Parts: sequence; structure tokens; C-alpha cells
Amino acid sequence: VATLGIDLGGTFARAAVVDAQGRILAADKAALGERTPDAVVDVIARAASAALRLAGNVDVTAVGVGAAGQLRGETGIIRVAPNLGWRDVPFGALLAARFNRPVRVVNDLSAAAWGELRVGAGRGVSDLLVVFVGSGVGSAIITHGQLTTGATGVAGEFGHIKVVPGGRPCGCGERGCLEAYVGGHNLTAQLRELLAEADPASPLARLASQLPPGAPALPPLLEQAAGAGDARAREVLTRAADALALAVANQVTVLNPGRLVLGGGTLTHLPLLKERIREGVQAWSSAVSRDGLTVADAELGDDSGIIGAALLASGGWG
Amino acid sequence: VATLGIDLGGTFARAAVVDAQGRILAADKAALGERTPDAVVDVIARAASAALRLAGNVDVTAVGVGAAGQLRGETGIIRVAPNLGWRDVPFGALLAARFNRPVRVVNDLSAAAWGELRVGAGRGVSDLLVVFVGSGVGSAIITHGQLTTGATGVAGEFGHIKVVPGGRPCGCGERGCLEAYVGGHNLTAQLRELLAEADPASPLARLASQLPPGAPALPPLLEQAAGAGDARAREVLTRAADALALAVANQVTVLNPGRLVLGGGTLTHLPLLKERIREGVQAWSSAVSRDGLTVADAELGDDSGIIGAALLASGGWG
Repeated sequence: VATLGIDLGGTFARAAVVDAQGRILAADKAALGERTPDAVVDVIARAASAALRLAGNVDVTAVGVGAAGQLRGETGIIRVAPNLGWRDVPFGALLAARFNRPVRVVNDLSAAAWGELRVGAGRGVSDLLVVFVGSGVGSAIITHGQLTTGATGVAGEFGHIKVVPGGRPCGCGERGCLEAYVGGHNLTAQLRELLAEADPASPLARLASQLPPGAPALPPLLEQAAGAGDARAREVLTRAADALALAVANQVTVLNPGRLVLGGGTLTHLPLLKERIREGVQAWSSAVSRDGLTVADAELGDDSGIIGAALLASGGWG
Repeated sequence: VATLGIDLGGTFARAAVVDAQGRILAADKAALGERTPDAVVDVIARAASAALRLAGNVDVTAVGVGAAGQLRGETGIIRVAPNLGWRDVPFGALLAARFNRPVRVVNDLSAAAWGELRVGAGRGVSDLLVVFVGSGVGSAIITHGQLTTGATGVAGEFGHIKVVPGGRPCGCGERGCLEAYVGGHNLTAQLRELLAEADPASPLARLASQLPPGAPALPPLLEQAAGAGDARAREVLTRAADALALAVANQVTVLNPGRLVLGGGTLTHLPLLKERIREGVQAWSSAVSRDGLTVADAELGDDSGIIGAALLASGGWG
């Protein structure tokens, strides 16, 4: 039995045919054009057709979608998808009409966590905390083998806990969120602020001047500059790393997971951040809560969401 | 059908016969003498016999225990009970041998949260966060109508999240825990520190001098002194209140509960703390996560644990 997994981001949609063991049989990716729900459904349908054709037109019993946005529980309604400019779009119903199959829509991080749980770094664990740091920051919590969705479907909004009340503005419209300090997008913003006022002789300014013409300054430059002795780059990075590490340690204390899985591009490209999380969990989480805890890197990379969405469509939460 | 609920604290054990609707049919309380497991089982058995006699010797099908300590998951083993000086005591097995009934042992806060969920301030809610601030600080998390126990049975250790890394020492042996600032025991300690070095003309010193001879200075004095303009009392209280409010707000953000239930003696006696939690949740939790959230006071008082333990024994977690 195979199902169709859909990964809906802000610029691309991917579709994959996934078997019951979580193997991708075939996949296709298409750029989004217009952002209206109907146009996005069209793009997804095209990618899905291509993937199905590649898979030899195997039958799929259901469709699972991991969408970059906030869901209204299990209704299939996308409450907010900032990158698409959507509010309260009944996306599950639209897709179900197109595919004539049951459709399940979940948050992209929930889907990714489910993929890691079932066939990735969380295999065999029933209490799992997954933390992803990419351009944003998110988490997913699995307890008793079930995804914690919360009362209105937005549990896991780890990026929007407040680490500095009244602090830096965040993309969510609030202030002082963890994501405002440590998400890739906001690390880039802080890097640019530093560069705008950096002494040209500072390690940061010198490293930036060595970038190829037109290449943007990206967060790994902070880590390079800090390593070269740049005090201000080190300060920004340390603040971000400490806030992230403390927040993860505290979640370990409260949730007592058997495994902590770390993923996302920002952690991949800034090994210092990932190292600091590991140190922080050791130093700051309650000793009894981390008893038996293992910390692992996410294993499925960009495929975790599409695999997780497909598996969620086929088999419920447990 | 009735079950027996046991509330095992550090100085007393209570036993109650509880019906399937969570009503206490009869109860008895006995002081602990010797702290050996066998001696404690004897005390519990006496209290239980008295309660059963008062209830007209109704038959009980199972026994539930809420114990002030950390459990080893669902094994019935009490890993640590600081007030009893216990380590790895197979208390469930000892009680099962005495009562010849199935016995379930859970943490006292988990039991209390379950009581509030089933027949108290959490009725009808499937995603619940319960925060208790008494002499210590704890929480219980219910998602999908199930108690979150964690991988090793210690989920909910909210009092031991770190709010000031490296800060005040905590009874748990670590530093900077939330409980080290806001638990009743530690508020009393901070109050005594203030009094030891207070200017005799300060509002705090004057209020303390008006206590009846021999009466101890207790945390509500901090709130009175702050209200009378004592800057240092206000500082201690504000630090505690802000740390607590921010921590609760962040848990709301991550867990997206439908209801937050607040209980425990310290919150009852320091209304300012409870008010500050409500303000903090409003100001600091993510807007989408508190969508639909209601905040309520615990309703069952000291009976929540015994009722919850009895109901847990009768009906599983869900």
C-alpha cells in the first residue's frame, strides 16, 4: 500500500509516492506560480501526477500534506500560511476534491517529526522531542507514540517562546521570541546589522570583504568571524546559542523525552549551535529528566516532511 | 464501583474510598511514624481500614497512590522520595501484597492533575496544563486526554527548569531552578535572607516585628511588605513572579493547552503571583497558542490528589 506525501513550502511543492515502510518510490518537485489556493492545488496535482507516473501508476490510498503554516486542528483548514499569504484556507477539502482520496493536512514540522519518528532518528522511541532550526525555529512533541497537537492544533510553537520579553521583533508580530534570535532568517538580519556598523578592520568585516562579488553574507559567517576573534559576532552567536540551548534543556526537563532529535539547515551549517544545545542539555536539564536521554541528528534531511506526511495519511497518529 | 485513593506525603498518609464519579465516600488520615517502607505500608493499611469501615465496607477493586516523589514510569517503583528518604522502593508491589488488589503508583502532582481533569477545573478538556505552586513547583501535562509521563516517568518537572543558569541553589541539588525562586519553601528562605539584613525602619522589618511572638515569617509577608513600599521585598517577589509567569507563558506557547489550571498553597496565599501568571500568559504566550485558552483555579483543593489517584486506579489514563 502506498500513499502520496506532499511537502508544501513557500516557493515549491514536492510530491512523493511513499510505501508503507516509508520508502520514497518516486518524487517530483514544482515551483509555485500564483499563490491562490486553486493555483497551488494545480501545481501539486501536476507534481503528484509526475510522481505517480514515475512510480508506475501505483494506486495511492490517501494523501498527506505537510504545510508551512498553522493548522486548525484536524480540520484540514490552514489558519495562516505567511509565505503564501493565506488565512483560513480549507486546503484539505480542496485537495480531497481533486484527488478523490482522504487527505490529511498537518504542519510541516509535525510531518517532519513523524517521518523521523517512524523511519529516521526517532525509530523505536515513544517519547520524542524534535527541534528544527532552519530559517525559523520549531519543534514537535511525541508522547506515548502520539503527536501532541494541542487544543487548537498549534502545539510545538517552540520558536515563539519568549526569551527576552520585549526584545527583538519577530516575524510573527511579537517581540523577544527565540526565533528572533536564532532562526536563520533572523541570524542573517543580525549579521547585516553588525556589518552595517562594523569597523572595517574587524575580523567580520574582513571576512565579509572576501566573499565573492554579489554573494550574500549568511549566518555561517558569524561562526567564522567569532572563530577569528570578532567580539561582536561572538556576542550575537553566543546570545543565540545560549537562548536556544537553555530553551531546549528546559523542554527536556518538562517533557522527559527518551530522545532529542536535532535538525534543520541552520543547525547543519552552524555546528557551534548544535554543540551548544548538547552542552546545554547536559548542564541545564534536570538530571532525572535526561536520565536515559539520547541526542541524535535528524536522519532524513529534506525528505522527513514528505515521508512523514505520507505515513500520517496512511496510519493515524499511533 | 469504588476504588481506594492514597495520598502519601512526607508526614501524613491519607486514604479515601472514592466512587466512579470521583466522590469521596469516606476518608481517614494518619501520621507517619518510622519511614521504612513496611512501616509506611502499615500506616496506610490502618488509614485504609478506617476509611473502608466508614464507607460501610464497600468493596474496592483497585488502589491508586499519589506519592510525593519521582516514579520509575509505570513500574510502581518510587525512584526518589526526598521527604521519606527513599530510593528505589518497590512500593506498588508492597501495597499490592498487602491489599491483594491491583495498585497503581503515580507522582502526587500527576494524581492531582488527573483529579482536576476528571472532576475539577479541567472537566471536559482534553489538552490541559496544570501548574501547582506550593512548597515546591510542579506541573502536569495532559494531551489527547492522556497524562504525559515521559520516557522515564518524570515529565512535568516544571519546578526544575532553569530560569537563572548558575543561580540560587535548589533542593534538587542543581542551581537556578524556577522552584529556587518561587516555591514556598524558597520564598521563605529568601524572606529570611532579607530580614537578616533589613534596615529596622524598612516596611518589611516593621511588619515582621508586628508578628505574634514565635510566629514564623512566611511568604505572604513579602507581598504585604511590597504593598507597603518595601523595595527589596518587591524585588524578590517581582523576580519570582516574572520568572514564573514567563515560564508558564512559554509552556502555553509550546503545548497549546485548552485550559490552564492553577493550584497550590503558595498561589492561594500570594494572589499577586497568580495575577502575574494570568498577565504573563496574556503578554508573553504566542497569540495562536492561547487562542481559546481558559485559565482557571484548581477546584478540589487538597482532595485533588486522592481523588485523582483513585480514578487513575479504576480507569487507565484515558
